[in-house]
Amino acid sequence: MNYKVTLLFDGSHFSGWQFQKNAPTVQGVLTETAERFFGESVSVTGCSRTDSKVHAENYVCNIKSQRAISPEGIVRGMNTLLPPSIAIKDCEEVGEDFHARYDCKGKEYRYKILNTRERNPFLHSRALHFPTPLDPVKMREDAKAFQGTHDFTAFMASGSKITDAVRTIYNTHVTEESGVITFSVSGNGFLYNMVRIMVGTLIDKNLGRNEMSISDIIEKKDRRNAGFTAPPEGLYLHRVYY
Amino acid sequence: MNYKVTLLFDGSHFSGWQFQKNAPTVQGVLTETAERFFGESVSVTGCSRTDSKVHAENYVCNIKSQRAISPEGIVRGMNTLLPPSIAIKDCEEVGEDFHARYDCKGKEYRYKILNTRERNPFLHSRALHFPTPLDPVKMREDAKAFQGTHDFTAFMASGSKITDAVRTIYNTHVTEESGVITFSVSGNGFLYNMVRIMVGTLIDKNLGRNEMSISDIIEKKDRRNAGFTAPPEGLYLHRVYY
Repeated sequence: MNYKVTLLFDGSHFSGWQFQKNAPTVQGVLTETAERFFGESVSVTGCSRTDSKVHAENYVCNIKSQRAISPEGIVRGMNTLLPPSIAIKDCEEVGEDFHARYDCKGKEYRYKILNTRERNPFLHSRALHFPTPLDPVKMREDAKAFQGTHDFTAFMASGSKITDAVRTIYNTHVTEESGVITFSVSGNGFLYNMVRIMVGTLIDKNLGRNEMSISDIIEKKDRRNAGFTAPPEGLYLHRVYY
Repeated sequence: MNYKVTLLFDGSHFSGWQFQKNAPTVQGVLTETAERFFGESVSVTGCSRTDSKVHAENYVCNIKSQRAISPEGIVRGMNTLLPPSIAIKDCEEVGEDFHARYDCKGKEYRYKILNTRERNPFLHSRALHFPTPLDPVKMREDAKAFQGTHDFTAFMASGSKITDAVRTIYNTHVTEESGVITFSVSGNGFLYNMVRIMVGTLIDKNLGRNEMSISDIIEKKDRRNAGFTAPPEGLYLHRVYY
C-alpha cells in the first residue's frame, strides 16, 4: 500500500527533514513512529529536504507499507504516537507509483519577518526578528521581478552542484499584519537556499544596501550580487502541488 | 525611581508569575535580570498572579530602583538579558506611588481553543486543543450573560477564601479564525480560575452537557453548576487597565 500523508511540523528542534544518524530529523521520527504504528518496516519518502529549523505547514510524504489500514485510522493512530512538534493533517491511499518528490509539480514557501523593534516570545524560532523598519509595499514591488522563468544561479547557495538553475516562479506576494511581514513565493522548483537568498536580497534592497535591480541580479548570474541568506527560522514550506 | 514595565511572556515553561523558591517563575527571572541590569537589588511588583503555563501579551509590573536610567535604555538593555520566553514591550517612568496591582482598574483575558480534529504543532501549549466541533456563534450568545455586575461565586475555584465574589464584567466576545476560537472577557477583577471556569462552562453548554442558563448558574452561586476548569495553556492575560 502507498499512503500520501500531509503533515505540519515545527522545525525548531529538528535538523531538517532528511534522516541523519546522530541528529533528530522529521523523517527519522516519522519513520520510527510509522514502524511502531504499522508494526513492520516501512519506507517514508518526502517531497523535499528542508534545512535545520525550517518549518512546514503542508509537507507531503508517501509511506509504503504491506498493511492496509484506513487513512482515517492512520491519521488518528499516528497522531497519538507522534511528538507535539509533528502532526498529520491528512492521509489518502494512492497508487503504488506515487512518489512524493518525483511527482511534485510545484511548491509554495512563506517567509515571516517580525519587523518590530522588540522581539516577541510567541514568534521565537518561528520568524526572523528584524528590528529595522521595512517597507512591505516596496518589498512587494521588488519581489515581482522574480516572477517568470529565469536562470536563478545568483540565488543559489555557492558550491551547489546543480547544472540547470532555470526555474519558473509562478507568483510572489508580500503582506503585513501586526508587525509581521510575510513573503510568499510559489514556483515549479527551488534551488538550495533560494528562498532565503531572495529574502536577504529583498531586505538589502529595502534598506538601500543594494542598488542593483532584481532583474539585473538575476541576469548577471553571480551569487555575490544577491543579498545575505536569511536565517532558517522564518521559512515555512507552505504547500506542495501535484 | 519607579518604572512601569509592560511585557509579554510565553508561560509554557514557567510556574506562573509569582516568585517560588524552587521553580522557574516570571517574577523570579525578571527580578534576577533587573538586578543584573541595574546592578543593585530592586523590587518587582506584578499586576496579578498567573497560573503555571498561562501566557501574557501585555503584563504590567513596576520596578523600583535607586538608579535613573532612560526607559528606552531599560527596554533595550533588559531585552538583551532576558530569555526568549520573556520580552519587554514598553517602559515608562511613573510616580513613586504607582503600584501595578493596587492601581489596576481592570483586565482583559483571552482564551484560545484550537477547534480542529487534528492538533497543530504551532499552537502546542498555546491553545486548548478541543477536537469536537463547537459553535462560536452560540458561544458568543451564551457568553453575553456574564456581562454586568454579578456575584461570581459559581465561577470561583472551590476552596478560595475570597469573601466578596462580586465582579463587573465589562464585555465578552467570541471570534473564530482558521479553526481557532478566541473568547475575550474584560472586567474590573477576576476570581481565582474564573476565566477558565467560564470557558469550561461555555464548552459544556455548547455541547449540550449543561442545560442550565449562565444566568441561573450565576444566580445559584454553586460551583457545581458551572463547567470544568479549562486547562491553563489556552489562557492569555491580554491587557491591563489603569
